[in-house]
Amino acid sequence: MKVKLASNYGFCFGVKRAIKIAQDYKDSATMGPLIHNQDEINRLKKDFNVGLYQDLKEVKDNDTIIIRTHGIPKNDLQKLKDHNAKVINATCPFVTTPQQIVKKMSEESYSILIFGDKNHPEVKGVASYAKNSSDVHIILDIEELKNINFKKNKIATVAQTTKKKEKYLEIINYLILRNKEIRVFNTICDATFENQDAARELSKEVDVMVVIGGKNSSNTKQLHAICLENCQDSYLIENESEIKKEWFKNKTLCGITAGASTPDWIIQKVVNEIELI
Amino acid sequence: MKVKLASNYGFCFGVKRAIKIAQDYKDSATMGPLIHNQDEINRLKKDFNVGLYQDLKEVKDNDTIIIRTHGIPKNDLQKLKDHNAKVINATCPFVTTPQQIVKKMSEESYSILIFGDKNHPEVKGVASYAKNSSDVHIILDIEELKNINFKKNKIATVAQTTKKKEKYLEIINYLILRNKEIRVFNTICDATFENQDAARELSKEVDVMVVIGGKNSSNTKQLHAICLENCQDSYLIENESEIKKEWFKNKTLCGITAGASTPDWIIQKVVNEIELI
Repeated sequence: MKVKLASNYGFCFGVKRAIKIAQDYKDSATMGPLIHNQDEINRLKKDFNVGLYQDLKEVKDNDTIIIRTHGIPKNDLQKLKDHNAKVINATCPFVTTPQQIVKKMSEESYSILIFGDKNHPEVKGVASYAKNSSDVHIILDIEELKNINFKKNKIATVAQTTKKKEKYLEIINYLILRNKEIRVFNTICDATFENQDAARELSKEVDVMVVIGGKNSSNTKQLHAICLENCQDSYLIENESEIKKEWFKNKTLCGITAGASTPDWIIQKVVNEIELI
Repeated sequence: MKVKLASNYGFCFGVKRAIKIAQDYKDSATMGPLIHNQDEINRLKKDFNVGLYQDLKEVKDNDTIIIRTHGIPKNDLQKLKDHNAKVINATCPFVTTPQQIVKKMSEESYSILIFGDKNHPEVKGVASYAKNSSDVHIILDIEELKNINFKKNKIATVAQTTKKKEKYLEIINYLILRNKEIRVFNTICDATFENQDAARELSKEVDVMVVIGGKNSSNTKQLHAICLENCQDSYLIENESEIKKEWFKNKTLCGITAGASTPDWIIQKVVNEIELI
């Protein structure tokens, strides 16, 4: 079976970088899971002895701790340092940027608006960089925005990297019409949308499509839905063991894409298997 | 005839203030017409000996010169000072704000985008406050924006005070999607829209409507068009001499509004005349 990979798929720049960093620091531990893929976490443990802490309390003196792409709240970073942990920062540069913006804008007496999910680790980390937590407001939609009473007359905005730009613009427009100064930082990362755009294009030109990723992963499910729009024969699998030969009967070209947490080695096994059909 | 005035009509805050300033400085001259209403300019000349210069070359040493609401380019202000003119600044505070924003943002190395008409005196004045004129771009729509190659990676935006907010947002949204930082200053003044909103409301509750203003004034014509939407019997007049008695036959309530350049004393004469019908 002939196979064609999407022009963008799988890990984003930040995750690729974090995994490379983890491999470079054997016998370390990540603070929270580095990626939403148990196979990859197992591989890092087996091949590089990279462990996993779920809680700061687990950290022991002189541990080597890897900060994952989402970043970490400022106080937690301090606690790690208090443990004399060797801290290896694999925070995605696209997340470091809003952290630094929040720090600077807060020092310049702006109220801070974060468009994102207040329970998401990335957002918790970004918010923690404000001088005063009371200057930071985290919202998911305009309804929540309406309830905010900004203390400062100038407002700076950042967005969680994976949020939709259209929704961010709606929020910004609402603010501009009601305030004298809005300082807008476009901190949204294109990676998720690049995978989606590439899947959309590829699914138009193939007659069967395989999407590789976690069945519970929302970004993988979205890729699958996008492929189904253009190619009825689109299948979602977690790994090569789920491939079924009958999918490829009378087909000439199989498109392949993968969710943002699917490592290349799993993708490669799927490609090899389908090429043998 | 019973008469009801719109809740907002006629001069905005800035024009009222400028005329008061002119009356306080007898024997002065304005740099350019203070207002687009010849009757009012004649009154200022007759009652307060406030003259009118059309060109800087007319200024004589030690003249008292009134800067009108639109403001004046920075270099022209300097030329007035070189003449030892006594400069009385009646620039509208809502225009001084974007002037100062352009100055500050330009000093902080922002590229400046002005949404406005590059031939309008207000915009010329605002633009003149940039450190380098090459950092300033003046546009009226997104098509013009597409041709701009911004030299700086951060952009500050201001708008001519009388522009429409919806169009300003369109321009800002275009910029946000393509740049890392946009610093948005909402410098649009509500005065024009407040007159329009008030005219819209009043024209719904009366059975005849009189709009007072210049027949060539675009804001007066727009007020008239808005009134006609709700009240077929809406008439545009320049002063009380144009009132026709038949307009009020079988009518019970006459609404009155006036364009942004219509002085109160003209409005009052119209009100008096209609009340006598």
